[in-house]
Amino acid sequence: MFTQEQIRALAQPTASKIILLVLDGLGGLPKPDTGKTELETAKIPNFDKLAAKSICGLSEPVGAGVTAGSAPGHTALFGYDPLAINIGRGVLEAVGIDFPIEQDDVLARGNFCTVDNTGIITDRRAGRISTELNDSLCKLLEMKIDDIQILTAPVKDHRFVICFRGPGLRDALTDNDPQHEGLMPLPVTALSAGAIKTANIANQFIERAKKILADKHPANMLLLRGFSRKPQILSMEAIYKLKPAVIATYPMYRGLARLVGMTNLPTGTTFADEIKTVKEHYNEFDFFFVHLKALDAAGEDGDFDRKVQILEDFDKTLPELLSLNPDVIVVTGDHSTPAMLKGHSWHTVPTMIYGQYCRPDKVTQFSESGCLGGGLGIFSATQIMPLAMANALKLNKYGA
Amino acid sequence: MFTQEQIRALAQPTASKIILLVLDGLGGLPKPDTGKTELETAKIPNFDKLAAKSICGLSEPVGAGVTAGSAPGHTALFGYDPLAINIGRGVLEAVGIDFPIEQDDVLARGNFCTVDNTGIITDRRAGRISTELNDSLCKLLEMKIDDIQILTAPVKDHRFVICFRGPGLRDALTDNDPQHEGLMPLPVTALSAGAIKTANIANQFIERAKKILADKHPANMLLLRGFSRKPQILSMEAIYKLKPAVIATYPMYRGLARLVGMTNLPTGTTFADEIKTVKEHYNEFDFFFVHLKALDAAGEDGDFDRKVQILEDFDKTLPELLSLNPDVIVVTGDHSTPAMLKGHSWHTVPTMIYGQYCRPDKVTQFSESGCLGGGLGIFSATQIMPLAMANALKLNKYGA
Repeated sequence: MFTQEQIRALAQPTASKIILLVLDGLGGLPKPDTGKTELETAKIPNFDKLAAKSICGLSEPVGAGVTAGSAPGHTALFGYDPLAINIGRGVLEAVGIDFPIEQDDVLARGNFCTVDNTGIITDRRAGRISTELNDSLCKLLEMKIDDIQILTAPVKDHRFVICFRGPGLRDALTDNDPQHEGLMPLPVTALSAGAIKTANIANQFIERAKKILADKHPANMLLLRGFSRKPQILSMEAIYKLKPAVIATYPMYRGLARLVGMTNLPTGTTFADEIKTVKEHYNEFDFFFVHLKALDAAGEDGDFDRKVQILEDFDKTLPELLSLNPDVIVVTGDHSTPAMLKGHSWHTVPTMIYGQYCRPDKVTQFSESGCLGGGLGIFSATQIMPLAMANALKLNKYGA
Repeated sequence: MFTQEQIRALAQPTASKIILLVLDGLGGLPKPDTGKTELETAKIPNFDKLAAKSICGLSEPVGAGVTAGSAPGHTALFGYDPLAINIGRGVLEAVGIDFPIEQDDVLARGNFCTVDNTGIITDRRAGRISTELNDSLCKLLEMKIDDIQILTAPVKDHRFVICFRGPGLRDALTDNDPQHEGLMPLPVTALSAGAIKTANIANQFIERAKKILADKHPANMLLLRGFSRKPQILSMEAIYKLKPAVIATYPMYRGLARLVGMTNLPTGTTFADEIKTVKEHYNEFDFFFVHLKALDAAGEDGDFDRKVQILEDFDKTLPELLSLNPDVIVVTGDHSTPAMLKGHSWHTVPTMIYGQYCRPDKVTQFSESGCLGGGLGIFSATQIMPLAMANALKLNKYGA
């Protein structure tokens, strides 16, 4: 397998432009009464028309049978080995809200939660308190313990980021979040000798926070998970000689994109807004990662019909994006989210790559069954970036 | 590529049940006069009906162009890297007859054979002597040489196991079996300095055995191959959190399954017997490896029509197995054994995975050509276990 380092040696800057359109949670499963998946049910003539001109296939996000979370799913789409790079949840949340991470910060994702008078968790999300209340509670939690500064930042609803800043911190720590209601928060434990100091600080912080929040029902406790530091990775610019931008409505995807060096372009809340943003900045960048969240949310809710409707809505807006005439456009997902499973799944993801030199296959329907006969076959999602680069004529020949 | 160690981190125990049905030597080649393979010739409506509900593909046992032996073929099906694990023939034979192996034993597979008065092998199988005669000859061969105990155990017909037990033994040894008639038995040679003692013991043993057997024509000599020790591997229970059982009529497959920690369920000699055994123990286990040997034997004999007939017989019995309603059923082979080649071959193996969430493709014929258009594509046999686990909802999500 060609490595990212080998691709780097071949990459050259050119004027051509690539759009990577990620429909989060794209793949699905057939509804038993029709035998058709969400994509097979939706009327999406514009996606189908693009498929007819494209090379199509089914991408495997991480590995056969493996259900990818959002982080490894996107890492693979950006051409990084998702098994070699570990981007912790804390870092992801922080980058997604423009939190200014410093090199050795240890970050965690926090939830305000509700505990009963015996300390047992009764609601892991504290009734999804308002972001405003979250903001005011976060302010109460900023403190210093020994030589460590503890910073907080609200995300949305009950979610926040916590940052431990100071000398000697490590991220090899277990969560205090037991992941289920009806249990008590767990002590944070160090997974390496070097992390003992950080575990002690985290546990002292949790104890103090418990007292501070005691009378703040329903947000009378907090859960921390995904202790992590910034990973050391090369930027997409360094690898691909691209000037990449991200357009995403949801913080985590912007955060992930910024970790690989993309510039965030602020946008609105709809697909139309996102396309407008691409248009406004089209001359400034040569790679656009456009992320659409709505489909995944419908899949997670188990709402087959809404997933179909969203696909049809996207389809109506697609020509506006295509009118920019990018040299290469990739349409794919970071993983499947079948409404039938109400969650991410291991199934392969319909993918198409359009470009003047893509060698179209005979696929005329952009769906799971349609893409099965495509020219890309069943392939690793990490191959999407090399293929997009090649189709944009941005990769030199390998060897004499 | 996702490793077994990474799959292990995602595996969770659930109540769902998996059946892995291995039709040994399943794939074939077309008969020149019909242009159809054994599977394409056989009338197998029940396999075809299952294929229509399944996700299908062609599995590659070890690597492109590589003909797999039974051990690597099965190692791959159980999800182990067949290139990383070397299970010697001696160990396999021993485990298959319940021989109580100790940690540092060196085991070999033995054949009684016939040699002429110049010592040249005239029949590598000694006319397939009876198991009773084999048993009585084995008893004559037990001895002690220096500090090494030499134990024997009959297998079947002319085949037996030999065990060298004592301090300082190593298994880096060549066979004394030249694999062809018309040649003399070879001296055993050490492939590492550490194995010189073992080679000397083995050669002394062979010399003594030659004298003991001199008047036992047709079994007047022995051939040893596959010197080996028990490999150090994690059990399937440790990796997959499964409670696995093996149902197989032939010792070697039971032995292989036991090496990865499966419980052997004694059974009869037919497919119907094996299914009856699965039924009797269905509540005690959640993974059943059911091995069918007959197809491979017909292929090895070059008997195309018998291979077809056996497939049709299996097909009639399949509904009985399906009536158990396993959550996931995999039908595959450990390698192809085309009657046209009278032996194992490198060809990919028709494979189907059925489960409620399998995302069926358009394959309606369980055959080489049918599976070619399947949703699994052409894939490594080592991916069958992760896919089966995923379909049984026994794998957690990877990453946030």
